[in-house]
Amino acid sequence: MGTHYQAVKAADGSLLPGEFLITPVSEVNVILERAQKAFWVYQKISQEQRAVFLLRIAEEIEAIGSALIERSMAEAGLPEARMRAERLRTVNQLKNFSRILHVGEWQEPSINTGNSERPDLRKRLEPIGPVVVFGASNFPLAYSAGGGDTASALAAGCSVIVKAHPAHPGTSEMVAEAIIKAAKVTGMPEHIYQHVHDTGFELGQALVKHPLTTAVGFTGSLTGGRALFDIASNRKHPIPVYAEMGSTNPIVILPNVLKEERRTFWVDQFKQSLTLNCGQFCTNPGLMIAIDSKEIQFFMNDFESAISKESSQLMLHDGITKAYQEHKVRLKEYTTVEFYYEGEAKDARSASPALARVGGKAFIENPHLHEEVFGPYSLMVLCEDKEELEAVLHALQGQLTGTIVGGEKELNDYQKSIEILKSKVGRLIFNGVPTGVSVNGSMHHGGPYPATTNAYFSAVGDDAIKRFVRPVTYQNCPQDHLPAILKDPNPNNWCRRINGSYTFDAVQ
Amino acid sequence: MGTHYQAVKAADGSLLPGEFLITPVSEVNVILERAQKAFWVYQKISQEQRAVFLLRIAEEIEAIGSALIERSMAEAGLPEARMRAERLRTVNQLKNFSRILHVGEWQEPSINTGNSERPDLRKRLEPIGPVVVFGASNFPLAYSAGGGDTASALAAGCSVIVKAHPAHPGTSEMVAEAIIKAAKVTGMPEHIYQHVHDTGFELGQALVKHPLTTAVGFTGSLTGGRALFDIASNRKHPIPVYAEMGSTNPIVILPNVLKEERRTFWVDQFKQSLTLNCGQFCTNPGLMIAIDSKEIQFFMNDFESAISKESSQLMLHDGITKAYQEHKVRLKEYTTVEFYYEGEAKDARSASPALARVGGKAFIENPHLHEEVFGPYSLMVLCEDKEELEAVLHALQGQLTGTIVGGEKELNDYQKSIEILKSKVGRLIFNGVPTGVSVNGSMHHGGPYPATTNAYFSAVGDDAIKRFVRPVTYQNCPQDHLPAILKDPNPNNWCRRINGSYTFDAVQ
Repeated sequence: MGTHYQAVKAADGSLLPGEFLITPVSEVNVILERAQKAFWVYQKISQEQRAVFLLRIAEEIEAIGSALIERSMAEAGLPEARMRAERLRTVNQLKNFSRILHVGEWQEPSINTGNSERPDLRKRLEPIGPVVVFGASNFPLAYSAGGGDTASALAAGCSVIVKAHPAHPGTSEMVAEAIIKAAKVTGMPEHIYQHVHDTGFELGQALVKHPLTTAVGFTGSLTGGRALFDIASNRKHPIPVYAEMGSTNPIVILPNVLKEERRTFWVDQFKQSLTLNCGQFCTNPGLMIAIDSKEIQFFMNDFESAISKESSQLMLHDGITKAYQEHKVRLKEYTTVEFYYEGEAKDARSASPALARVGGKAFIENPHLHEEVFGPYSLMVLCEDKEELEAVLHALQGQLTGTIVGGEKELNDYQKSIEILKSKVGRLIFNGVPTGVSVNGSMHHGGPYPATTNAYFSAVGDDAIKRFVRPVTYQNCPQDHLPAILKDPNPNNWCRRINGSYTFDAVQ
Repeated sequence: MGTHYQAVKAADGSLLPGEFLITPVSEVNVILERAQKAFWVYQKISQEQRAVFLLRIAEEIEAIGSALIERSMAEAGLPEARMRAERLRTVNQLKNFSRILHVGEWQEPSINTGNSERPDLRKRLEPIGPVVVFGASNFPLAYSAGGGDTASALAAGCSVIVKAHPAHPGTSEMVAEAIIKAAKVTGMPEHIYQHVHDTGFELGQALVKHPLTTAVGFTGSLTGGRALFDIASNRKHPIPVYAEMGSTNPIVILPNVLKEERRTFWVDQFKQSLTLNCGQFCTNPGLMIAIDSKEIQFFMNDFESAISKESSQLMLHDGITKAYQEHKVRLKEYTTVEFYYEGEAKDARSASPALARVGGKAFIENPHLHEEVFGPYSLMVLCEDKEELEAVLHALQGQLTGTIVGGEKELNDYQKSIEILKSKVGRLIFNGVPTGVSVNGSMHHGGPYPATTNAYFSAVGDDAIKRFVRPVTYQNCPQDHLPAILKDPNPNNWCRRINGSYTFDAVQ
């Protein structure tokens, strides 16, 4: 074990320039003490100033220019268009949280005025303290050093420590430098943002264990997320872990969309969703469920034919390529699973789409078939009838998304299936595909375990900020000591709950 | 171990009439399957109908009349006025959740309209499934069979299983019968509410472990709450435990309120708060913190004198009386702690107030002094100066409440102390006492660990409902399949977040 490491080029495994210092575990205490000190200053900085800081981060990230795109392409093996789109999303996330801070209602202001018989109570959400964020391998920008977890935690008023993903340390460093520069320029406290490296698990675990850490953001595998959750839950003072751990994102295909004229459209939609960036999305459609029929066989033939035209693509890193191949090998051992298409990978660092099918009963009975296979793989579950379809849906684990594709009238006939599917997912999609995650107030990117370790919160969109705040009630607090949003006047036209009703009025 | 048990009269340990069947652990699976089945029906019942159900529960509880008051007095040893007040609170909680269901905004509706480039997304909170509630020994009505956890879970749309507290099984049975009757009369599904008994821990643990259980509500000791939290966190699919585990509820006394004319007022306030119902509240003021001075010595003398006039009171049950005595014995072993008042208990089932004092430094260094002593005990921490006061506040654990008592101008001088105190508590009280918990939208009854296992949610008030719901996003969902609060029209004048802004408008 050295004290430095180098990044690996995804395309050929060669070493990329730049050496990254592995942070010794012995430094964790100093890091958290700095983060705590910065938090005490930062939480008192006005939300308008925090908004300026976030906007400046967006500008500094943009200012890195093509160097950031090139480095992330080299490290993650993703195409240029994707990295440009991801940078845009990253920047827009920061801008969106900046906007939310100006709006203010994310604090959920609630006021119950007092009188001689009852106290005056005023409540809002306030930041919790230092937050540890783990960079995600599949989103070098949007879920890493300056991604959604960082942006929402900084917006909430928390200090942040990011552990870079070792698959893209150079990208992570560039973004971290941009954030630190933005902090300096906008007068934020030193160490409001810290960035550390490790090629193993030790440092991350030590960060989660430290008493001053108050919450954890993570995007990655079930094994990784659960390990952090267990550490956090077994602390003397447990803390929340917001681990977003992926999903098979089932698509229920109803009979009417399989008619020839609509089939072409849906085959193309699913193909794009499955193969985009080599299927390396947590919302990748890894499961399709339908009632067996002549039409579904036609659909599968068309799907196979469409997918066979897709060339193999680079994967993010060696570990993911290996896991994808191993998963497929294991799946082939089940006699109930039939691989009806498997493309060839052009080299050991790439992967091609694969499609398999299984009967409803066999699917229900084999828990391994319910696990996510990260990559461009999808399993078609063919059910005998509507009852078996419902049984398959009942057997599903928690999911980020669930999709139902069907004709408008047909949806009424499958109301029960829709309800079962809804009970398993964070986002219920009608006649669409699960990939493509809009970043706004109505997006819920989350879902019951094992999709996440906390079904109550979203990793994407406005409400991601709620992961890093807790309610505080002020009882009979003098106006001078109240935060602005809880004072009697309402100069910013906030929507507040006053005595149980929502209103834009000032307190009378 | 028998299959039945009897309740014990708090006043003399005699057996009360009535035998209660201990539910065998082997029945847990059937109980949860019933609860799940009921949940599937109940979650689709309109909120207006749920509101009718809750109101009816309130009526049925009132209809039990004085028999409920008498039984609860006998089992818990609490005075009549308290039990009448607690029944009123219980009934009002149910009525309040009934009102909230009519209002609707608790679902946090959010709509982002779509166009050719982005999907239509609509999000609200939806119920999670069967909830297990543990009856609280110190609130036989307001936190037991039909208390705040039950009311908020039923309001959310969840089915409920209550494990009665073995110290008041008769009270619990009476309320359970009222709820089951109300369910029947208002056409709710069978087993929407189930009520079970156990004198040990086995049944409760089995309920928390069952795969169909989705959340747990608990009010009680740190040991009990943490044990349930550990079980829930170690499940294959972890679930949230909302354990409210008590607190020392520190009161910071600033110099100016110790002047003679105000001293009398505050001594009386603190005395009442400390001794009400033998100090058996989770918001009991178990810690007072002040800078040492001549005035604080006067205050302590007056406080001692006031408390010495209080007669001893019955405690809830044997276990609590014993724990209170043992705590005091252990505290006396510390040479740094000086007991300056300890009343005599009239019998082995009762307790009298006790006051002790310790220096700031000794308090910081001894973690045992930070633990809650359930009963009418308070520890005065005397600090050398403002810096030591701040250090003491920094050393505090998470609390339900923190109080600051001081003159208006003085508060400005102690701004830093207030900030430190706030970082530790769920409710920050100015010039008041921690006991007395208003039930409304601005109450936060919660706080950082070890006050609770989840600092993000409240056990009391409107937002207690948020513990039993999770967000679900509907993407491109046809209007017919959307819940009413997410459809385009807004007939109920809901306040909704539409495209990022709060508004009472319909979707255009």
